[in-house]
Amino acid sequence: MADGTKDTVSSNQMWGGRFASGPDAIMEEINASIDFDKKLYAQDIRGSMAHATMLAAKGIISGEDKDKIVGGLNTILSEIESGSFEFSRKLEDIHMNVEARLAALIGPAAGRLHTARSRNDQVALDFRLWVKEELAKTERMLTDLIAAFLDRAEEHAETVMPGFTHLQTAQPVTFGHHCMAYVEMFGRDRQRVRHAIEHLDECPIGAAALAGTSFPIDRHMTAEALGFREPTRNSIDTVSDRDFALEFLSVAAICAMHLSRLAEEIVIWSTPQFGFIRLSDAFSTGSSIMPQKKNPDAAELVRAKTGRINGSLVALLTVMKGLPLAYSKDMQEDKEQVFDAAENLELAIAAMTGMVRDMTVRADRMRAAAGSGFSTATDLADWLVREAGLPFRDAHHATGRAVALAEQKGCDLAELSLAELQGIHDAITDEVFNVLSVDASVASRVSFGGTAPSEVRKQIAWWRSRN
Amino acid sequence: MADGTKDTVSSNQMWGGRFASGPDAIMEEINASIDFDKKLYAQDIRGSMAHATMLAAKGIISGEDKDKIVGGLNTILSEIESGSFEFSRKLEDIHMNVEARLAALIGPAAGRLHTARSRNDQVALDFRLWVKEELAKTERMLTDLIAAFLDRAEEHAETVMPGFTHLQTAQPVTFGHHCMAYVEMFGRDRQRVRHAIEHLDECPIGAAALAGTSFPIDRHMTAEALGFREPTRNSIDTVSDRDFALEFLSVAAICAMHLSRLAEEIVIWSTPQFGFIRLSDAFSTGSSIMPQKKNPDAAELVRAKTGRINGSLVALLTVMKGLPLAYSKDMQEDKEQVFDAAENLELAIAAMTGMVRDMTVRADRMRAAAGSGFSTATDLADWLVREAGLPFRDAHHATGRAVALAEQKGCDLAELSLAELQGIHDAITDEVFNVLSVDASVASRVSFGGTAPSEVRKQIAWWRSRN
Amino acid sequence: MADGTKDTVSSNQMWGGRFASGPDAIMEEINASIDFDKKLYAQDIRGSMAHATMLAAKGIISGEDKDKIVGGLNTILSEIESGSFEFSRKLEDIHMNVEARLAALIGPAAGRLHTARSRNDQVALDFRLWVKEELAKTERMLTDLIAAFLDRAEEHAETVMPGFTHLQTAQPVTFGHHCMAYVEMFGRDRQRVRHAIEHLDECPIGAAALAGTSFPIDRHMTAEALGFREPTRNSIDTVSDRDFALEFLSVAAICAMHLSRLAEEIVIWSTPQFGFIRLSDAFSTGSSIMPQKKNPDAAELVRAKTGRINGSLVALLTVMKGLPLAYSKDMQEDKEQVFDAAENLELAIAAMTGMVRDMTVRADRMRAAAGSGFSTATDLADWLVREAGLPFRDAHHATGRAVALAEQKGCDLAELSLAELQGIHDAITDEVFNVLSVDASVASRVSFGGTAPSEVRKQIAWWRSRN
Amino acid sequence: MADGTKDTVSSNQMWGGRFASGPDAIMEEINASIDFDKKLYAQDIRGSMAHATMLAAKGIISGEDKDKIVGGLNTILSEIESGSFEFSRKLEDIHMNVEARLAALIGPAAGRLHTARSRNDQVALDFRLWVKEELAKTERMLTDLIAAFLDRAEEHAETVMPGFTHLQTAQPVTFGHHCMAYVEMFGRDRQRVRHAIEHLDECPIGAAALAGTSFPIDRHMTAEALGFREPTRNSIDTVSDRDFALEFLSVAAICAMHLSRLAEEIVIWSTPQFGFIRLSDAFSTGSSIMPQKKNPDAAELVRAKTGRINGSLVALLTVMKGLPLAYSKDMQEDKEQVFDAAENLELAIAAMTGMVRDMTVRADRMRAAAGSGFSTATDLADWLVREAGLPFRDAHHATGRAVALAEQKGCDLAELSLAELQGIHDAITDEVFNVLSVDASVASRVSFGGTAPSEVRKQIAWWRSRN
Repeated sequence: MADGTKDTVSSNQMWGGRFASGPDAIMEEINASIDFDKKLYAQDIRGSMAHATMLAAKGIISGEDKDKIVGGLNTILSEIESGSFEFSRKLEDIHMNVEARLAALIGPAAGRLHTARSRNDQVALDFRLWVKEELAKTERMLTDLIAAFLDRAEEHAETVMPGFTHLQTAQPVTFGHHCMAYVEMFGRDRQRVRHAIEHLDECPIGAAALAGTSFPIDRHMTAEALGFREPTRNSIDTVSDRDFALEFLSVAAICAMHLSRLAEEIVIWSTPQFGFIRLSDAFSTGSSIMPQKKNPDAAELVRAKTGRINGSLVALLTVMKGLPLAYSKDMQEDKEQVFDAAENLELAIAAMTGMVRDMTVRADRMRAAAGSGFSTATDLADWLVREAGLPFRDAHHATGRAVALAEQKGCDLAELSLAELQGIHDAITDEVFNVLSVDASVASRVSFGGTAPSEVRKQIAWWRSRN
Repeated sequence: MADGTKDTVSSNQMWGGRFASGPDAIMEEINASIDFDKKLYAQDIRGSMAHATMLAAKGIISGEDKDKIVGGLNTILSEIESGSFEFSRKLEDIHMNVEARLAALIGPAAGRLHTARSRNDQVALDFRLWVKEELAKTERMLTDLIAAFLDRAEEHAETVMPGFTHLQTAQPVTFGHHCMAYVEMFGRDRQRVRHAIEHLDECPIGAAALAGTSFPIDRHMTAEALGFREPTRNSIDTVSDRDFALEFLSVAAICAMHLSRLAEEIVIWSTPQFGFIRLSDAFSTGSSIMPQKKNPDAAELVRAKTGRINGSLVALLTVMKGLPLAYSKDMQEDKEQVFDAAENLELAIAAMTGMVRDMTVRADRMRAAAGSGFSTATDLADWLVREAGLPFRDAHHATGRAVALAEQKGCDLAELSLAELQGIHDAITDEVFNVLSVDASVASRVSFGGTAPSEVRKQIAWWRSRN
Repeated sequence: MADGTKDTVSSNQMWGGRFASGPDAIMEEINASIDFDKKLYAQDIRGSMAHATMLAAKGIISGEDKDKIVGGLNTILSEIESGSFEFSRKLEDIHMNVEARLAALIGPAAGRLHTARSRNDQVALDFRLWVKEELAKTERMLTDLIAAFLDRAEEHAETVMPGFTHLQTAQPVTFGHHCMAYVEMFGRDRQRVRHAIEHLDECPIGAAALAGTSFPIDRHMTAEALGFREPTRNSIDTVSDRDFALEFLSVAAICAMHLSRLAEEIVIWSTPQFGFIRLSDAFSTGSSIMPQKKNPDAAELVRAKTGRINGSLVALLTVMKGLPLAYSKDMQEDKEQVFDAAENLELAIAAMTGMVRDMTVRADRMRAAAGSGFSTATDLADWLVREAGLPFRDAHHATGRAVALAEQKGCDLAELSLAELQGIHDAITDEVFNVLSVDASVASRVSFGGTAPSEVRKQIAWWRSRN
Repeated sequence: MADGTKDTVSSNQMWGGRFASGPDAIMEEINASIDFDKKLYAQDIRGSMAHATMLAAKGIISGEDKDKIVGGLNTILSEIESGSFEFSRKLEDIHMNVEARLAALIGPAAGRLHTARSRNDQVALDFRLWVKEELAKTERMLTDLIAAFLDRAEEHAETVMPGFTHLQTAQPVTFGHHCMAYVEMFGRDRQRVRHAIEHLDECPIGAAALAGTSFPIDRHMTAEALGFREPTRNSIDTVSDRDFALEFLSVAAICAMHLSRLAEEIVIWSTPQFGFIRLSDAFSTGSSIMPQKKNPDAAELVRAKTGRINGSLVALLTVMKGLPLAYSKDMQEDKEQVFDAAENLELAIAAMTGMVRDMTVRADRMRAAAGSGFSTATDLADWLVREAGLPFRDAHHATGRAVALAEQKGCDLAELSLAELQGIHDAITDEVFNVLSVDASVASRVSFGGTAPSEVRKQIAWWRSRN
């Protein structure tokens, strides 16, 4: 493929004799997609093989031509995977690059491959196959990330930390419970991924340019050969539909948002002020001017990926807005957005899986923080309701006064004397001290989905059986 | 509720005695959500009834208190629905407005309602219930829109029009086939809506502030009473999760994009230059200065709604980016985005359903356009492949020359003489004229999902059995 | 205006006799803009007065008619401002509402007001006037916010705090210096606001529907009367241009991003772990279940406003994408986005100005944090370069070893012995201890724009002279 | 540079001895920016030369070291521009790649270059220089595009076409006038570009990591050497500010929106139904299956670029949301968004400039369309106001009836008889026929900015004197 003259066979010449002049430099620059759509080579070749096999089975091309085509395509696959294939921008896209090479390899039989199809259904097929495979990969990576969290959750089912709302200490929880919150998030992402696969599982090939074809093709045969549930049901829609790309991007955007929340927590927890975790050297970097710095770069980059993926989603939603049916060239902008989002989502999930597995949990710092800030105030209020029969709102008020007193005295709730507590409400007895420790607080929250270690372990078991 | 003094009982006082000064005017302005979250009143009351009933069933409150609470809530429901309820901004949100009124109506028993719950799980419940109902409504509206298209498709299964790619005439299709492309799109939207319901079908109540509760509640009981499949499995995630809102918005954005494509076609087809359809007076407007104008305003507004809904999706994705667990006040920005998107999506679907049903299809203009522009060139190329055995690329070239000749002569392909056609390729016989008419072209495309009337009718039947 | 029959005079009837049937309920719902564009009433009336005055000055209408029109418009202005004006959805928009009322008040002369104009240039004028005034208001509010920061910066020009990168302690800075970083940001925002005003300062009225008019109008006269620099130069562009709205939104989005960074810092600094500041009760709220909480709600809501304003920007960019010239009804979606963004930006700036003025700065906590975490490591490295002549990279390495040693010993850099430091590099003398304190570090950074109190005071003075 | 062993000197080793283990594969993948920031090589080298020169001028480094540094940097510049420089991912970014090579070339003196600076101010400088140059390039390209429109406007100052609102024929305009609408849009874009340059024209270098430096540097000297108006005024803001990137993106997004509107018009005007223009072969492509197609691919791709650039704007706005000061690694995501938007905006402007210059304007088709659809109805209404003294609203009604009559008769307004017109309003005389032709209509609109050829020529002259 080192023959530089190949580029002189431009795809323009393939359009037929109607065009006097060729596209100029700007046009080539703006029009050519080969720089990014070569990523679809495997899908393109697989799709062509299935199409040729079906054409032969239906007697539309000869078995001999089919064999030549399949043989040639296999050669091209090897050339591309070994790096010896020379891609040409003049040939615009992956489809034309493969087809031109096939013609060079097997001669006129190559010209029969495009029978009963068009670039419109061909690119719809290639891209859909790629997205389907990427979704399957995302599903596996999410499973790994969930597994990492399940392990940390199990390890820390009893590790007490402050539960935050508004980034203020609210109530004690366990770090295991906190980990399981992420299991829920990534579990939902995975469920959306699975449904996205189900939604796109229809095979486009055979829709041709937009109207279907008069050749006696068998679309169920190609659908089955390529692993789709069934063929698409409307040829116009088939070539103008990019829902599968948009759904990938929206699922990715929600997942990236979850990752950004985890990243934010890692950044905050790694500060000297919090000090809840320590990242491994593998996932942090130093400073060129400040030798003491250990920066959570990987977490920050994961957090930033949200922006990038949101951007890709916005880009494609904007591109598709108001496009008349069926295919318009605007849709060529679909692939880079999806490729970029996919690559970055993979990277972000992988980095997070690594960080979750590697990070050192500083249980002592977590416990110390959990015990300060009056984190068991709700337990006091609940005790007043449960044991002293106060309406919740009254118990809330009494507890507020207890907190104010403790704050004024510079001590924690458990350090107030019984007399002081009785000064706030005379129904209080020394039984109350049983609920004012963080361990008692955590252990008491046994409601379904609550933070008690016993509950957390139940949820771990439930997820393990499904991961 | 006409007593203006009610506002002096501010929700600030409910927080307890710790706050010396009240929120000032800016704070009230930025903090209060009652102006929009009152939309959740029915869900809030329903949730409170289920919670109170469960509390009584579990012996956490008395049956007598439960009866008072349920009675009071029913009164409030009537007051709100009759318009006599006076909402107060000082009471911040729907939850506090309802609770303060309940206290006024039934006294101390009202204070027991908030046992074992928090505003965090309460708002998560209310909003989730609202989104679930809105999704169900969207599903029904999409079913109506699909039904409208099925009717028009059936009526026009044989109405020939130009099939466009790049807004250039490509091949003849039928208007029925074109309608069915939209059936596919809105059918996918509906499938996504159904899965979105499945994804959110978990009940938040009982997660309390973030850690669960030590009261012996039964979350499966409330889940069942409120029509959820099951309770959520992690209390921290429960109060920090807004995936259901984001999924609603992303499903809405893709649907709005489909609507924008249809809107664009209506705008273009309504021009004097195309003239394919005529909108009814009900869906168009006049001009203040140009009396002859009949403007497709409704279609233009539907097209614009895409922007609005994309904006809401971006807004909430941005809000949620990087929020540490569990609840942060940022999340209060979730509701307006979803309410606005929901209202506008409903409006856009309803307007489109009306336009599709009402518009006059100008079959003569469609047919005339289909027959010009060499729209059967592909049929000629396919004929050369099928009947004359040419490889597709050679057939394509020959056809290109035929088109160039016809263009130069100012005639259509079918108007070239046999001699002229044979000058282009000598394998051509007068059989070729059988495929050069638009009706023959359309009728020939019988591949699965193709534009042949017989195929279109099959797909209509398939969808009717599922709508 | 209490006469309910007014609604039966629908704006449809104004379009003329061509429409047999009226717009139905959906159409009214989707088409009417009066619910939001009534916000433009003052601009609409002002514009009409200027237009009528010009028409009379040019002899296009009589002076008598002009007087009636201006009188009627003044009446309407009073009615609206006193709340007695009854807006009608049937009359669609603010323009038609005002015009119909004018006809009721002054009879046939009202019909002459619309001479030589159209709703297209009228709405372009009204909206542009509104945006111009809003920008002027934003400029003033930013000036207030900058003033608040200048005051705090002056107060804390010597208050030492940790300077962070990656949210890790990097080098000591002063809180005054940190405040001045926000002065720079909001100063840039204000500069963009000023240029946005300059960009939009052209008067649309007189462009008519899109082509200009044959009436002998004087557009320079109306431009001057309405305070614009000059009239717009192309009538087609005039009615299809919404750059001024998009520029408002993009300027607002960048400003909101700055506010979100400040909000994030306030949230983090308010945690018990950081404890750098304490918000006043006016800008924080309590919890319904956790009496001890003091939540930075206002800061969180400001942070969330970024999402909302980004959403509005995306919405209008998407709406305007691909609209053919000149006016399309899609553009009616412009106003709600701008109104919502403007209201929320105002609120966010006001809340931040309040928080900056009210918050308690805990200088002791800041100083303690600044002194830990080896924050003067760079000073050691710089000393080695400056005094011992090491290349920067070598100094960096030596400092890294010193940090590692101190970390291992559990002490700070200044607590290492001279012998220990000389073990790391023998060029070190006891002079080095002069740069290892945070005050020395801060005082030494006198480069232009640096953190030394003397420099910070210079920058405060520079800004005071420009605020 | 072919020595493969270079990669074993990782930038990790540069951070100092504190890190036991190196970043693993994921970290390298997510952290390295060299793949894209090598685009900044020229700015990086230019900045380093200016910095070294200043350091020597201030006696911070020796003149000898400065000469070595400048010499080495010149060598590196040549190596990069000749393609012989070997970039290493292990060295992370362009700064480290250049510095490591400098060390290899000139030895220890290289280590002095980084005195009194940090990667934080270095990257801020490099990127700001790049954006400033890109803005200057954009300004030039917009000037070219405006020039193309001015030429076409002059050529077609009298070419009549339908002026559209809602894509319905409204009033006749000239094609020259329509072209001038785009001149206004791109003129505004250019003005925004100029102000964006003014806003960013401050030099970051010398801010160091975030606090400034104790070395006696002269920031005004480097600012001047690098062509900036002045140095930045706050070192913390300097390293955390990306407003210049966001402003570039927002200016680009508005410009791309303008381009998308033009693209949409080109797509619609190229349809057989409109046929207003014909694109040159250079800017259109053929179909693989439909030989007759001539697709406006370049215009469609330009239209789609709006989505891409909006996406980049959203991405960076999202990345920057809520970042605490000063530098966070999230900000590394800034460059790819800007580079991608810049490249695509350039491409889109260039393609449009080409299309505008090349396209064939089909004046006959435009005139025919302008004359149909009752486009002079407003002229009739205006005549009734002007000559017959009717209030505008009455004239509007009468005209509406005339249009209805003509539509019913299947003729144009000018083809109604005087008797028929007088049946509608008896003030009509045969003078009215003087305003019912499209040429008379166009010529009459001489208001400032109106469509009369005389006015259009005035505006062309005004712009020519400023382009």
